[in-house]
Amino acid sequence: MSKRTIPPSTFLAPLPAALVTCQDKESRPNIITLAWTGIVCSDPPMAGISIRPSRYSHGLIRNSGEFALNIPPADLVMKVDLCGTLSGRDVDKFAVTGLTPLPAREISTPLIGECGVNIECRVTEVVPLGVHDLFLGEILATHIDEEAFSEDGTILIQRINPLGYIPMDKSYRAMGDALGSYGYSRKNRG
Amino acid sequence: MSKRTIPPSTFLAPLPAALVTCQDKESRPNIITLAWTGIVCSDPPMAGISIRPSRYSHGLIRNSGEFALNIPPADLVMKVDLCGTLSGRDVDKFAVTGLTPLPAREISTPLIGECGVNIECRVTEVVPLGVHDLFLGEILATHIDEEAFSEDGTILIQRINPLGYIPMDKSYRAMGDALGSYGYSRKNRG
Repeated sequence: MSKRTIPPSTFLAPLPAALVTCQDKESRPNIITLAWTGIVCSDPPMAGISIRPSRYSHGLIRNSGEFALNIPPADLVMKVDLCGTLSGRDVDKFAVTGLTPLPAREISTPLIGECGVNIECRVTEVVPLGVHDLFLGEILATHIDEEAFSEDGTILIQRINPLGYIPMDKSYRAMGDALGSYGYSRKNRG
Repeated sequence: MSKRTIPPSTFLAPLPAALVTCQDKESRPNIITLAWTGIVCSDPPMAGISIRPSRYSHGLIRNSGEFALNIPPADLVMKVDLCGTLSGRDVDKFAVTGLTPLPAREISTPLIGECGVNIECRVTEVVPLGVHDLFLGEILATHIDEEAFSEDGTILIQRINPLGYIPMDKSYRAMGDALGSYGYSRKNRG
């Protein structure tokens, strides 16, 4: 258990490699890949995303007050990386990646068809923190690929195949098999 | 790409299955398992954790103004689940799990020896959101297991082996192999 102390680092893992969609005033959509995202409240259901003010998507979300979180399957890893390294100021990321915009239900911003889960959010608060601003958003609608459901209505994670991001080595990784589920330890302990 | 709309749900994945440590005024430590956590800013480095006011750890962190994020290896999954289903009001979770408290550097709250990464945080802001309060904390120190470093100083993720949590089926999962690393797509595109 010997430890090496390194400079204060953002080494939490795994994080979601989420594709966040947003759009400008002329309804031109953009995609930004974000790992600085998470769930912040269960009821109302809320998510948070952190974006640098210099990023193109920052102004779009600030102006529109909405965004969608799209969870890409692991086999989209190269498109996920492209959306995190190109700027929507320079390119149309839907065109570059060939990803499919789908209409959302509660917001104007499109969702990404190829992503197994789509979460529509309305911004409720922006918290300036430093080089990033934290956008808090209420989750207004959630959509799941029909193909991800089993016959009994269970969501099959292997069909969602969510992509994770590991800040320590900047790697993208798929998930392994389930090791247990919430609450299993108490049942097995008797 | 047919989608099924479900009630607004917190189905972002993967999320960290983090062990958060805190302590009471008599320096009695506690552990709470949290998936509602993430990185919110790179500089200053900051993390966020969301906790229900009813949870024992909520009052401890509110009073002490500090917490640590400890990243458990996947083989600790049963202890991670126990720390998420038992209350520190009833049991001493370090005693129940046999996990080892180690002194931190910048805060009074102990770290968990068996976790490959330990992140010390000081609370800067508490944002009430609904059933959860969001604690924002500045990262003051980060520690990595000596055993996780290769000879050239690289962090080997397979030795950290971080445990993820998938809200859709409430499963805990280890990571698979790296599929690429940040920026690789542009190099490979030429």
